Amino acid sequence: MIYITRRERFSAAHKLYREDWSQEQNEAVFGNCSNPNWHGHNYELFVTVKGEVNPETGFLIDLKRMKSIILEHVIHKLDHKNINLDVDFMSGKKASTEIIAIEIFRVLKPHFDQESVQLHAVKLYETENNFVEYFGE
Amino acid sequence: MIYITRRERFSAAHKLYREDWSQEQNEAVFGNCSNPNWHGHNYELFVTVKGEVNPETGFLIDLKRMKSIILEHVIHKLDHKNINLDVDFMSGKKASTEIIAIEIFRVLKPHFDQESVQLHAVKLYETENNFVEYFGE
Amino acid sequence: MIYITRRERFSAAHKLYREDWSQEQNEAVFGNCSNPNWHGHNYELFVTVKGEVNPETGFLIDLKRMKSIILEHVIHKLDHKNINLDVDFMSGKKASTEIIAIEIFRVLKPHFDQESVQLHAVKLYETENNFVEYFGE
Amino acid sequence: MIYITRRERFSAAHKLYREDWSQEQNEAVFGNCSNPNWHGHNYELFVTVKGEVNPETGFLIDLKRMKSIILEHVIHKLDHKNINLDVDFMSGKKASTEIIAIEIFRVLKPHFDQESVQLHAVKLYETENNFVEYFGE
Amino acid sequence: MIYITRRERFSAAHKLYREDWSQEQNEAVFGNCSNPNWHGHNYELFVTVKGEVNPETGFLIDLKRMKSIILEHVIHKLDHKNINLDVDFMSGKKASTEIIAIEIFRVLKPHFDQESVQLHAVKLYETENNFVEYFGE
Amino acid sequence: MIYITRRERFSAAHKLYREDWSQEQNEAVFGNCSNPNWHGHNYELFVTVKGEVNPETGFLIDLKRMKSIILEHVIHKLDHKNINLDVDFMSGKKASTEIIAIEIFRVLKPHFDQESVQLHAVKLYETENNFVEYFGE
Repeated sequence: MIYITRRERFSAAHKLYREDWSQEQNEAVFGNCSNPNWHGHNYELFVTVKGEVNPETGFLIDLKRMKSIILEHVIHKLDHKNINLDVDFMSGKKASTEIIAIEIFRVLKPHFDQESVQLHAVKLYETENNFVEYFGE
Repeated sequence: MIYITRRERFSAAHKLYREDWSQEQNEAVFGNCSNPNWHGHNYELFVTVKGEVNPETGFLIDLKRMKSIILEHVIHKLDHKNINLDVDFMSGKKASTEIIAIEIFRVLKPHFDQESVQLHAVKLYETENNFVEYFGE
Repeated sequence: MIYITRRERFSAAHKLYREDWSQEQNEAVFGNCSNPNWHGHNYELFVTVKGEVNPETGFLIDLKRMKSIILEHVIHKLDHKNINLDVDFMSGKKASTEIIAIEIFRVLKPHFDQESVQLHAVKLYETENNFVEYFGE
Repeated sequence: MIYITRRERFSAAHKLYREDWSQEQNEAVFGNCSNPNWHGHNYELFVTVKGEVNPETGFLIDLKRMKSIILEHVIHKLDHKNINLDVDFMSGKKASTEIIAIEIFRVLKPHFDQESVQLHAVKLYETENNFVEYFGE
Repeated sequence: MIYITRRERFSAAHKLYREDWSQEQNEAVFGNCSNPNWHGHNYELFVTVKGEVNPETGFLIDLKRMKSIILEHVIHKLDHKNINLDVDFMSGKKASTEIIAIEIFRVLKPHFDQESVQLHAVKLYETENNFVEYFGE
Repeated sequence: MIYITRRERFSAAHKLYREDWSQEQNEAVFGNCSNPNWHGHNYELFVTVKGEVNPETGFLIDLKRMKSIILEHVIHKLDHKNINLDVDFMSGKKASTEIIAIEIFRVLKPHFDQESVQLHAVKLYETENNFVEYFGE
């Protein structure tokens, strides 16, 4: 069993807020992350898959294939976008790093299943000081 | 003559666009940076001052003082904000990395003059692959 | 189950030595880490907690709360200090990276228990080339 | 149980290809990694061992000893070498990051067993965007 | 006058040697960099241009244009190649980091002249510990 | 004219204080950097030399020679030491980053003069957020 991780990045706007709360409530819970005019981040995404090495190639999975799956289904939907407003798989969900990581895992899992490798983890950095990991359970 | 550099960071939303252009024109020139719903970045700011070492202290400038100047006049105005909408010193200006760096230099210069050190450079990273430097001339 | 990690840093002096050993014995075992006049490091600390996302907020734990727990109980006691002489929770213990990481875990665990999240791991870098991880067991 | 990780680096040439395939087949599967004249990387290697802290020293293992094991058995054989042509433990094997990581694990395991610590993981970066992990099973 | 820097990367094989010297002479001068079977690096390239900000756009130069110039004329020729054997602008030249940086500057200069910006510097990292800068004079 | 930079690192203890001042005065000026029991850092040192490329070798200076000069005259004197107490070239001087950088420049300059290259700059990081540069004038 070998694990391969690919790093990709996206730059996006978001805010943390609930429409059913007043701005005062949102500020009390979400602080400056609730700024009505949005803020943004350079997110850093690490996707890890696992499985057996193919003895024909020495590969677990072709990294070009792995990259294209992540770009098509995740990065192209998030990069230079507003996470709250523009991203289909985040519609109606809170744009916290926790939820974004969980939803990226859900989006990617079936595509790696088709490649006969197992999606092991999604790790998402919001800043150099904060990151979230989700293992699918 | 010695040079001291302090790094600070801010996370902000912005877009590149001109209100006097159509969305098609904006997209043609600014690409996905013109997304109407904004995007954002973790900006990394390096401020460099220069001058003579004070023989009493061995310091060019107290780094706590240098940090508080940058936080008060730049970081607190930009962090978790929308650069196009929320920042007084960017009002009416394009939110390109070039212009942001130039305006940060203009904002900081008089405050370092008062401390008897010379503002030498502002270096601003938009992503890990792109940065701008401005030396005041 | 989601995992969140927060990075904090502290700069401290220490040495590796046993008072019941001669300086020769200390040098033989601890090498230049036993320099009687101390040396020091910029330590980099990664604290990981795990638990369920709160559906009200989309958070596992408010990162400002997580940060303040780490600062109050760990960073403020270690930063700009001598680990052998100045730190209550290291009193009478060897100041190896292994022991520092274990003691930080012990100090932090009850405070995260009170927040209803589980302390998962403490990862401590002594230099860019060496780090230690402790998972509480 | 405590985990210690040591980072080392090596710069090496390699290519991905099968001698029993035509150059066209090699290009179809391995892309530009099959360039007949080779290419190369600055590999970054993280070796993790685990075990109990020795109460005499506060150490799991002396990091100088850990470093010398990695240098003697791995780095000195790979650094400034051609992985396909010059490295005994890679002879007859494909020079993919996956296989290199697995073989480094096999080479190192008995040497750490002799030190009474357990080799836990080998993590190998080929570029800043791609890395592989192997845990020995 | 504003300065913009773009980072790009390439992975390549090379060796340092002179064909008019014996292998012993090559080893005496170039050490393990003269390994006959090559070695390689992940090179990190920083290209800096300077000029006036265009008031129409807030740009010195469109970064997508800057990127495509560097990719077309430099990266695509060096990435996953053998610098000594495969690269037209390095033909007959020593593959030291110094010479590679100077030749990249020469290759890029006319292309930035056509864009009405001035090529200021080429900075080339061979490893995380060594880099070279060339300013064209 | 080409510029080459070599990075080296050292871990050391220090404090900022004046013996002719009371502890209260020292704290007022130097803050927690005046802790009587010392603190410490992982310092990161970048040494830059400049000159003409030797057409015989393609080198400005052999990097192994450059490294051995820096190790012998600077790193071996500072690493795992107390900068205030153990380092000959810092004797009687304040251990601020500014002064350490200036003294490193003074120590290194004659050794590079002997190699027929010119010492251009010393850049010294105290933390990831603070660094000092000295150009010898």
